[in-house]
Amino acid sequence: MHNLMQDWPLRVGAILDHAARYHAKRPIISRSAEGPIIRTTWADIHLAARKCTQALRRLGVKPGDVVGVMAWNTARHLEVWYGVPGAGAALHTLNPRLFADQMAYVIDHAGDSVLMVDADLLPLIEALMPRLLKVRQVIVLTDRANMPDTALDVLCYEDLVAAEDGDTDWEPGDERDACGICYTSGTTGNPKGVVYTHRSNVIHALASQSPDMLGLGAADTVMPVVPLFHANGWSIGYTAPLAGASVVMPGRDMTPPALYEMLEQGVTLTAAVPTVWLGLLGWLRDNPEKRFSTLKRVVIGGSSCPRAVIETFQDTYGVQVLHAWGMTEMSPLGTVCSFKPEVTALPHEKRLDVQETVGHPPFTVELKITDDDGTRLPENGEEQGKLWTRGPAVVGEYLHAGKSATDAEGWFDTGDVATIDANGYVRITDRSKDVIKSGGEWISSIDLENAAVSHPEVAEAAAIGVAHPKWDERPVLVVVPRPGASPDKQSILDTVARKFAKWQVPDDVIFVEELPHTATGKISKLTLRDRLAEMNYTLPG
Amino acid sequence: MHNLMQDWPLRVGAILDHAARYHAKRPIISRSAEGPIIRTTWADIHLAARKCTQALRRLGVKPGDVVGVMAWNTARHLEVWYGVPGAGAALHTLNPRLFADQMAYVIDHAGDSVLMVDADLLPLIEALMPRLLKVRQVIVLTDRANMPDTALDVLCYEDLVAAEDGDTDWEPGDERDACGICYTSGTTGNPKGVVYTHRSNVIHALASQSPDMLGLGAADTVMPVVPLFHANGWSIGYTAPLAGASVVMPGRDMTPPALYEMLEQGVTLTAAVPTVWLGLLGWLRDNPEKRFSTLKRVVIGGSSCPRAVIETFQDTYGVQVLHAWGMTEMSPLGTVCSFKPEVTALPHEKRLDVQETVGHPPFTVELKITDDDGTRLPENGEEQGKLWTRGPAVVGEYLHAGKSATDAEGWFDTGDVATIDANGYVRITDRSKDVIKSGGEWISSIDLENAAVSHPEVAEAAAIGVAHPKWDERPVLVVVPRPGASPDKQSILDTVARKFAKWQVPDDVIFVEELPHTATGKISKLTLRDRLAEMNYTLPG
Repeated sequence: MHNLMQDWPLRVGAILDHAARYHAKRPIISRSAEGPIIRTTWADIHLAARKCTQALRRLGVKPGDVVGVMAWNTARHLEVWYGVPGAGAALHTLNPRLFADQMAYVIDHAGDSVLMVDADLLPLIEALMPRLLKVRQVIVLTDRANMPDTALDVLCYEDLVAAEDGDTDWEPGDERDACGICYTSGTTGNPKGVVYTHRSNVIHALASQSPDMLGLGAADTVMPVVPLFHANGWSIGYTAPLAGASVVMPGRDMTPPALYEMLEQGVTLTAAVPTVWLGLLGWLRDNPEKRFSTLKRVVIGGSSCPRAVIETFQDTYGVQVLHAWGMTEMSPLGTVCSFKPEVTALPHEKRLDVQETVGHPPFTVELKITDDDGTRLPENGEEQGKLWTRGPAVVGEYLHAGKSATDAEGWFDTGDVATIDANGYVRITDRSKDVIKSGGEWISSIDLENAAVSHPEVAEAAAIGVAHPKWDERPVLVVVPRPGASPDKQSILDTVARKFAKWQVPDDVIFVEELPHTATGKISKLTLRDRLAEMNYTLPG
Repeated sequence: MHNLMQDWPLRVGAILDHAARYHAKRPIISRSAEGPIIRTTWADIHLAARKCTQALRRLGVKPGDVVGVMAWNTARHLEVWYGVPGAGAALHTLNPRLFADQMAYVIDHAGDSVLMVDADLLPLIEALMPRLLKVRQVIVLTDRANMPDTALDVLCYEDLVAAEDGDTDWEPGDERDACGICYTSGTTGNPKGVVYTHRSNVIHALASQSPDMLGLGAADTVMPVVPLFHANGWSIGYTAPLAGASVVMPGRDMTPPALYEMLEQGVTLTAAVPTVWLGLLGWLRDNPEKRFSTLKRVVIGGSSCPRAVIETFQDTYGVQVLHAWGMTEMSPLGTVCSFKPEVTALPHEKRLDVQETVGHPPFTVELKITDDDGTRLPENGEEQGKLWTRGPAVVGEYLHAGKSATDAEGWFDTGDVATIDANGYVRITDRSKDVIKSGGEWISSIDLENAAVSHPEVAEAAAIGVAHPKWDERPVLVVVPRPGASPDKQSILDTVARKFAKWQVPDDVIFVEELPHTATGKISKLTLRDRLAEMNYTLPG
């Protein structure tokens, strides 16, 4: 009586097949690598992806190989997104902002044998090539007319695919085969490789497009501003064709006017980190005649979204904010802050309070919080603890780690510290390595930072714990003032004090010109702590 | 590099866990088996289901066993829906309207060792019990106060679960383990058992709740009028908790005033076969002061939905109709007629034309049409052919069949004849065994019937092919007049002729008082053809 339904493996190729058959003419609008905005369709992407599969096979790419791809968000990147796994290889997305050593490390560690690179990013590979001993072929993602001058022995992507007819099948295989690889850009140690399977990507996309998650349908046009090389591209490369949505690809130009131009191509849903939206909203403030004519919802994740961004999108522009949380290890979706009926029923300000949480998980994402000893904590919105997760799209083992990434019961430690309330809304209060422990209590560095940046003269802020003989640690704020501003220490502390108990208010404010960031744009507290140690910083008083 | 994500089996128990944790207090409103309307929550259902699991284990139910359940749509049925697979057993839903011989056959064939039965349905089991040699225990789904008098040795469900504390885990297991069994009530031969796996039910529920399918979210309240024992209960027992939706259970009273009363409990989405809605809309016509205060969408499937029903729901009541198609073998969802942008752009009447199709499939459902030789036909909305399907929630092998239910490439023959248009909208034109073949062309019996019932004096109509020496077959209409009406043959044929080519118009109309139906309410053309043969019917002229 076992296993009497069909054996239909969950493979990502089937997603694109579905889009090409049932949403064939839905527009794919892309700012191309070469510059112009071009329009294609899911049917076009499907054909092009199969040509890509054929071309890779002709180059000797075999199932189980790894192909590195370093590219901006373009329609061509979408072709490759399916063309590489179509050949049975794993697509290793490369973040061009990685430091050279990290880049060389991940290309070698994943075993990339072929690299596919946007023309403007080729210099990064040229510089590294002597160290990339496993790479046997570099393909430049452009046409013959736009091929860059290079000393490397490279192939032209459009020449390769022009030689193919697209008349092929995706490589068949097990649903647990590797489909994609994305490295975490850890702030300590070497990056770690997360190997998405066909199965994990398909299940994750099904869960992500749910009405209360991204809520993607065929009437939507989605623009991923988040790069496809960030955390599995937030899975939009899978959810969009699965839902039959249109896609707008912004290309490499992330300036506010360029993003606005692309949003006005009919986009209804978009997704990016808060800094992108801070930039866009600032530009819109200076261009008050600009409105969004089609945009309805914006997904904001990657780091905590300031309340002011949520309010401006919603109140000024009528665009619903979906605050979200996830991580590379989760494919990446963990939670989305959509409104359950309990929240819809709240008054405006209370709803905004809820929107400062990152929301609730979809089915297939299990969450729990524990204390340092692993004892489960109550989910009452008050107790904060280490956040753990479990699910079919959560990492089980890092690439070549040779050991499980989870505990014996299958739980993965997210490294975040959070509260979870009775309705399941998660508030990320800290990274566990950044939490400030004072007098036996935890103080949220994120909450302190959010309070500090609500000060009108503060551009960016980092809260870190500094050793204290009596209290273990005391919080200190490191602040970048807004251009031209010279904020007063006490006024910043007063601003913070409005939202915190007295013992939680930082002991000091240090002004700096800029904060150190990681390759994915997060504040590197590790570097910051090192800098304070180098300058022999001591607490006042 | 294989299988590095977590091994998290897709089991239905996880769906209820999710609902109980993240949608704990969402109301479950049920007309109980005992009569009163009761309110519980997903948290309550979760606790009760675990008690049910414990009680079944105490009775000796083991993984791999089969438990038969014959019950109306109540909250208690939902408990059992999870309690039985929670113990690792397969839940075999029993249709109380099956003929006695079929009922005895399916209970024995599936190997039901325990039966759980609503009190009012116990007489059906009492009558069969001497033939049910494998059944070792009967549980009556009620409390002590409502236990019926019976000579059978039965247990009281509420007594059993009251003895448990709910502190248990679902039986762990493989995702391809049997989870549920539903027999097709074939019009020929013995019913065939479809064995849903945990995996197929989970994947199917994820696909079904997509925005363009049921589009279920936490803000919805769904009422399945379709019985849970019909075609996997249209999967609503899984999609509702997965989406965190509220549920209203109508109980056994299917009269229009009773259904209306339950719809007014906040229902936003409901689902049933067309006859249910014909009855309700008729009652509403006679009670013009009644409106729907919350209902937004109605899923109509099981047989072709008349255009008038679609128009009345939408134009008179502002309720969107989602015409759907599926089958027991597909878990059951095949297609839903939601609007893609191409359809939204159409004028009103053209959109209604599209709504007479059953819509398009979700990702995970593959479809194709072929001619009798298996050659794939173009999907242009014109060519009709045998409809085949493939997917992870499609039957692979019927229970105890010992052979595949599919062809060598994994395609399952739905038994339907259909056209598929360029946008993927499927029009079911016939059952392949009912299609009328005249002069080498196929005539759709369903289209003829729909045309006939658009005649104001026709209550129900069946079109069948009658042997003809020259044309192979010629169509004949068998018609049930509306009460009190005496329609004229020619006026019915004239009505049909407006929509059909001359050679497609039936050669005759036969008036009868009623048509033979199967246990699931479909017209039994097999019986009808037998009757015509018995009366030595011959074509006129």
